[in-house]
Amino acid sequence: MLLKEYLEKGKNLVENGIGEYLSELKYPEVIAQGMSYAVLNGGKRLRPILLFMTLDILNCNPEKGIATASAIEMIHSYSLVHDDLPALDNDDYRRGKLTTHKKFGEAEGILIGDALLTHAFYVLTEKNKHLSAEKIVEIVRLTSEYAGINGMIGGQMVDIASEGKAIDVDTLRYMHTNKTGKLLKLPVESACIIGDASEQEKQSLIRYSELVGLAFQIKDDILDIEGDFETIGKPVGSDAEHHKSTYPVILGLEESKKLLHETVEEAKSILIKQFGEEKSMLLVELAEYIEKRNK
Amino acid sequence: MLLKEYLEKGKNLVENGIGEYLSELKYPEVIAQGMSYAVLNGGKRLRPILLFMTLDILNCNPEKGIATASAIEMIHSYSLVHDDLPALDNDDYRRGKLTTHKKFGEAEGILIGDALLTHAFYVLTEKNKHLSAEKIVEIVRLTSEYAGINGMIGGQMVDIASEGKAIDVDTLRYMHTNKTGKLLKLPVESACIIGDASEQEKQSLIRYSELVGLAFQIKDDILDIEGDFETIGKPVGSDAEHHKSTYPVILGLEESKKLLHETVEEAKSILIKQFGEEKSMLLVELAEYIEKRNK
Repeated sequence: MLLKEYLEKGKNLVENGIGEYLSELKYPEVIAQGMSYAVLNGGKRLRPILLFMTLDILNCNPEKGIATASAIEMIHSYSLVHDDLPALDNDDYRRGKLTTHKKFGEAEGILIGDALLTHAFYVLTEKNKHLSAEKIVEIVRLTSEYAGINGMIGGQMVDIASEGKAIDVDTLRYMHTNKTGKLLKLPVESACIIGDASEQEKQSLIRYSELVGLAFQIKDDILDIEGDFETIGKPVGSDAEHHKSTYPVILGLEESKKLLHETVEEAKSILIKQFGEEKSMLLVELAEYIEKRNK
Repeated sequence: MLLKEYLEKGKNLVENGIGEYLSELKYPEVIAQGMSYAVLNGGKRLRPILLFMTLDILNCNPEKGIATASAIEMIHSYSLVHDDLPALDNDDYRRGKLTTHKKFGEAEGILIGDALLTHAFYVLTEKNKHLSAEKIVEIVRLTSEYAGINGMIGGQMVDIASEGKAIDVDTLRYMHTNKTGKLLKLPVESACIIGDASEQEKQSLIRYSELVGLAFQIKDDILDIEGDFETIGKPVGSDAEHHKSTYPVILGLEESKKLLHETVEEAKSILIKQFGEEKSMLLVELAEYIEKRNK
């Protein structure tokens, strides 16, 4: 299957899951509507696709991962809703649409984010009945670790605290490893649990996901300089405007592109060594797509 | 054991648990410190005490509930942190201390709340290894349901949306059943899972917790009129100032007191019928304490 087809298929698979789970929620209307608005936002669904591809490489049916992928995407979406709030990034638009708090109100934005985060754990437990309780517990544990103070929230806090300050490359790496990295590692590691990966397979896949996470962030920083509003759906240069430390700021643009390429090459070679060229094809193409994407 | 001793013992039990779990968190400092500040705030620990007492009545060691009680208290605390934010209740003080966002900043307050909510699920899975995976999954499912859109967050949203509006007693009841009620039901129902309650014991205990939750809220509304700042630790009349619908506003003060008393009597009699007078003593005294408390 071509990467493009797979991206489309994975996106549909997870959006059908999310749509079904959220359609059960009715009241209060503003929270139910806000949750759908925030999640069904035209995102690339990179995290779910990483989860599905990892299940595929482990010879496990991707459908077994729909609930987990949906939950991770809900957590990703809640983090965007809270990041966009006036006290944080104060963004009015995301992917060309009004941000959730601009559409529904600020108090509502806070509560919609809280509800998405909370509901993710409901989906993990209520919609995963095809998995053993032991696997569910391990996925919940991992999710709460990677999304919390020792993961996404920790990275987000350091990001905010670093605005307008010169930070070194180690702090930048900590920030991204946690802010974006952990939530890209989570679907891969969850899929290893669902798909009964061997220890060695798991280590290769986790390393792949870490490198892909790093590549994703470097590319994001580059796009903030080289992209355009129409394509990336947010104002170009907003990192610079917020005085954010980025790879291009710290390493320079050319050096950042070089690091991006090396990172992607390393991710690819780890995978090919473990699973062979044929089985690795989709995840290899995904890594290349992350390097070359223009949004 | 006297109620007063038990309240002290239960408070210590859960605060030692919370203290231990939070002491593992170091970085980012502001999040780690903020989480402790928000949770270790001199609260009554009513939810943990309900959990411990329910375990006791089921002849189960309360220590088996420390992690679950701590997680529920973290969720309770996060909800207070977010409720106090400028976009919601905009409160500067809680129990006579600066609210979390006033102490650490608004962006930090949002993230500290998010981190507490997320960490609750970490504690439920990582610190409950003495329970079967099946029990943990059921507790996580219940927690995410009762804390989410169909529980606490739903009630909170209706509360906000009702400010300054006349609402009927059914809406008020929905609001409280969800905003405060579900998180008082949660420790009791979780303890039924941990302590292997029979179906009949569970139904009695759940009904007790629903009535106690209702009593708690009526009393809260009464205290907002009759209490004083020194004792309740927040300005008296703040509900009226926010044009909140309360039981005294809708039913009148005397009628509210009557409903409070009847509710507590019903809670007591359900328990005594199920477990007998002797075994029910602590939970009966707790219900009476909720009626008579002055803070």
